[in-house]
Amino acid sequence: MTSDQSELDRALWLSPRSAEPGAYDAELDSGWQIGGGVNGGLLLSLVGTALRARIAGGPHADPVAVSAYYLAASVPGPATLRTEVLRAGRGMTSLGCSLVQADGDGREVERIRALATYGDLGALPDVVRTTASPPDLPPVEECFATGDAPPTDFMAETGFLKRIDLRMDPSCVGWAVGKPSGRGLLQGWLRMADGREPDVLSLLLAADAFPPVAFDLGMLGWSPTLELTVHVRARPAPGWLRIKASTVNVAGGMLEEDCEVWDSAGRLVAQSRQLARLPR
Amino acid sequence: MTSDQSELDRALWLSPRSAEPGAYDAELDSGWQIGGGVNGGLLLSLVGTALRARIAGGPHADPVAVSAYYLAASVPGPATLRTEVLRAGRGMTSLGCSLVQADGDGREVERIRALATYGDLGALPDVVRTTASPPDLPPVEECFATGDAPPTDFMAETGFLKRIDLRMDPSCVGWAVGKPSGRGLLQGWLRMADGREPDVLSLLLAADAFPPVAFDLGMLGWSPTLELTVHVRARPAPGWLRIKASTVNVAGGMLEEDCEVWDSAGRLVAQSRQLARLPR
Repeated sequence: MTSDQSELDRALWLSPRSAEPGAYDAELDSGWQIGGGVNGGLLLSLVGTALRARIAGGPHADPVAVSAYYLAASVPGPATLRTEVLRAGRGMTSLGCSLVQADGDGREVERIRALATYGDLGALPDVVRTTASPPDLPPVEECFATGDAPPTDFMAETGFLKRIDLRMDPSCVGWAVGKPSGRGLLQGWLRMADGREPDVLSLLLAADAFPPVAFDLGMLGWSPTLELTVHVRARPAPGWLRIKASTVNVAGGMLEEDCEVWDSAGRLVAQSRQLARLPR
Repeated sequence: MTSDQSELDRALWLSPRSAEPGAYDAELDSGWQIGGGVNGGLLLSLVGTALRARIAGGPHADPVAVSAYYLAASVPGPATLRTEVLRAGRGMTSLGCSLVQADGDGREVERIRALATYGDLGALPDVVRTTASPPDLPPVEECFATGDAPPTDFMAETGFLKRIDLRMDPSCVGWAVGKPSGRGLLQGWLRMADGREPDVLSLLLAADAFPPVAFDLGMLGWSPTLELTVHVRARPAPGWLRIKASTVNVAGGMLEEDCEVWDSAGRLVAQSRQLARLPR
């Protein structure tokens, strides 16, 4: 399969507006919904794609850091992404992005505002000193496919779970049968269901592809993301990604969620943190 | 001492521009410099102060999440902060901010672009489930005051270190005598040198007040921040703060730096992560 044919690449297809430089039209497909809106990781990949398009042909094609503030839930249908170059430096380019959708009256409503820094991950020094360890997971075939989980009330829309292939560590799925571990930890394997290989843009999706880590604390229900920052630290090798999501601080009706994304070569390719609201 | 007289509150003093709503003038004092520029945490507090001023009188006075992209080093002298309300919701208000300074020719150069979400930390649910533990520190008087450290080449400007009272855990200061622990960990006590008590705005400073955690890996020199996100999770109690800074992923000429800020009541009041460049 070429990447052009993958479900993800179709979702990331953008049409530049000829009359408005730096603006791109996109179509949010209903198949990427989860909970009450379009998955926030898919939207972050879309933001990352628009920013890459904005500086295409330049030396900085890789998202190095992307921070998105989710102002309102995005819904299936047309969306417009407006991009801005904040600073074009020698080593990095910094950008901003706004994702808007029209409401019922045709007025634009901003769904996401984002900032980012792009660079060339292939040109950076090779020295790696990672003291974190990849999650210790049973083999893929011994993990639980979330696509097989029984449908639940709090996940009305689960199209997203059909487009990813997520295999959860059996030690982290007690919440599905009313026995959460209470550790605040979810880990497992991830790839795109249609076999599309990971790249720096799909890592932005991977950082928000897991069920809410609050599930492992027995808090079932959706945790809307307020803010999500992803650091992409290396281009991923082909194959399955290993992901570890955890929280250490549930307080004030919110929790932080940290995510490590490891590639098949054993490299920590992305780190993310988000602040999310607890299920009400 | 009233807070109006403190060094920090003087640094955070803003003058609204009458002709430009949402814009504020500030003066960056040379006494807040460290390394090659004005301390990034002080600048984040300044951004937080401008955003609070923008929505003063409304229900959301507390920064809950603030993300800043550092585009260029800020220098002592005048600065202007322009603020924008992105979304005023019932529970939260989201904002943007740009900090600019004039260059030698009077042209505005953007130093920082930031996004933030404000709320009312006093109105949030009381439930707290923190599984992290506060750093285990020797008593303040048994820790090393960084203000006492011998001046080093790589810290040409150390005014900042005179305004904070930072006491490092002795197990984390080997780098000062050529024996870094190699764990990627710095921890210690922090308060303002003039006794100003912590609040939600000074927590933004606290999240970037430590020496670069790369020091503990033997990489001495300045680590410029590319991106810094702080989540403020509760209003801090008066007294000393305990701070733990760590990194697990040095790669590609960059490192992430995670910071936990605990108050005197034993609460995890702020969590931050930054992406920084390694010393060259």
